[in-house]
Amino acid sequence: MPRYKLVVEYDGTPFCGWQRQTAQPSVQGAIEAAVTRFSGETAGLTCAGRTDTGVHATHQVAHLDLEKAWRTDVVRDALNAHLRPQPVSILSAEIVAPTFNARHSAIRRHYRYRILNRRSPAALDRGRVWQVPWPLDVALMQAAARPLLGCHDFTAFRAAECQAQSPIRTLEQLDVAVSLMGFNDEIVVAASARSFLHHQVRGLVGTLVLAGSGRLTADDVADILASRDRSRCGPLAPSSGLTLVGVDYAGPHEIS
Amino acid sequence: MPRYKLVVEYDGTPFCGWQRQTAQPSVQGAIEAAVTRFSGETAGLTCAGRTDTGVHATHQVAHLDLEKAWRTDVVRDALNAHLRPQPVSILSAEIVAPTFNARHSAIRRHYRYRILNRRSPAALDRGRVWQVPWPLDVALMQAAARPLLGCHDFTAFRAAECQAQSPIRTLEQLDVAVSLMGFNDEIVVAASARSFLHHQVRGLVGTLVLAGSGRLTADDVADILASRDRSRCGPLAPSSGLTLVGVDYAGPHEIS
Repeated sequence: MPRYKLVVEYDGTPFCGWQRQTAQPSVQGAIEAAVTRFSGETAGLTCAGRTDTGVHATHQVAHLDLEKAWRTDVVRDALNAHLRPQPVSILSAEIVAPTFNARHSAIRRHYRYRILNRRSPAALDRGRVWQVPWPLDVALMQAAARPLLGCHDFTAFRAAECQAQSPIRTLEQLDVAVSLMGFNDEIVVAASARSFLHHQVRGLVGTLVLAGSGRLTADDVADILASRDRSRCGPLAPSSGLTLVGVDYAGPHEIS
Repeated sequence: MPRYKLVVEYDGTPFCGWQRQTAQPSVQGAIEAAVTRFSGETAGLTCAGRTDTGVHATHQVAHLDLEKAWRTDVVRDALNAHLRPQPVSILSAEIVAPTFNARHSAIRRHYRYRILNRRSPAALDRGRVWQVPWPLDVALMQAAARPLLGCHDFTAFRAAECQAQSPIRTLEQLDVAVSLMGFNDEIVVAASARSFLHHQVRGLVGTLVLAGSGRLTADDVADILASRDRSRCGPLAPSSGLTLVGVDYAGPHEIS
């Protein structure tokens, strides 16, 4: 029973998130329905990062098991044909070892958060960015990101409904930069960790935006982290600005 | 009677193009209606580049005259409020000299064409790119762009309905590059000229894609240009991949 690894891109806007729900369209539900229409099989998908409502992905990873060993380009193309016109695209399909698990084998998740820092609303990137109309100071955001790097108890940045057993996470990257694309009005936050708590990236970005607005210093941010008090975290940044852009695995899992 | 210069961003998808039409939504019509709702005045807009159906802009320039001298940030914000929820955003408004003309004073237009060169459909950039599923050779596209640079009779790349008096244009830039964003599967064509013929950029890109597919050599492209035969031009690249990204003017026109 071969195991398939899928790399998936999606626009999160019309979905209630990755995870299958009974009454609402989900990315997982869309792909599982396409799997059934293509293969006649019912297979459950496991993914690396269960993105929330409205969160996008350029490189989500999922796995599933099918009875039949299909050609992987057939799997990719048939799923894409059955997914149409939904904004979900299978970028690749590979056959991997049965020990590969898209969620548990992942050693690093990469997220990118896009802030459109200008007064005028987004016309072309609506639903892809958080438009912040007041000026943000990128240097202050960079300074506020520093105390958040490394291994900490991130309880202050954790959703009430987070199901993780431990609030300890190691934030390996939290970079703030002006995007090289566009007109210097886009700020990108890049966050990487082995895993994240529920709503962690959006809470971090919301807090960095308070810092960039001059309403929190880097010391305040360090205090909030140390307080483990969820009520002191900045407001959650909207989901539309967030994209899962990569998942790392330790070794090659392809069977060739 | 002050003259206002507007810089405008829009998603061309829901519009029949820039130019006002009686029965279809246009960018010009949307802005003119917002002007009337905001100021009570009826004013006609003149723009730098009359984009086609589905073509986008990050930096279109237009001018209009109003009876009253408003504060320019009021003009920008009021127009944006009245444009909502249409995907048109006024990035800036300035008062300019009455000799400024968005169309006739422009000395250079900059377009960018995005090609998503991969087998899988676009999920996140749908309506923003041309997805070409077969592999393109960027070096061949770059070689084919070279004979098109400079001053030529571009009749072969001109729409039948083009209203320009002369088919002679000077193509100052036609760069082909792999985008620095994304996963090396996006190719960007940047084209700049004082002005373009109707459909010229889309014809050029369609021809470069034939070259990148190995179906035309750089010499073939030079022959097509020299032939002035419209039937030999490659198929028009779809409008969705095209964005007007900038307009240059010779000097400062602001009145401060």
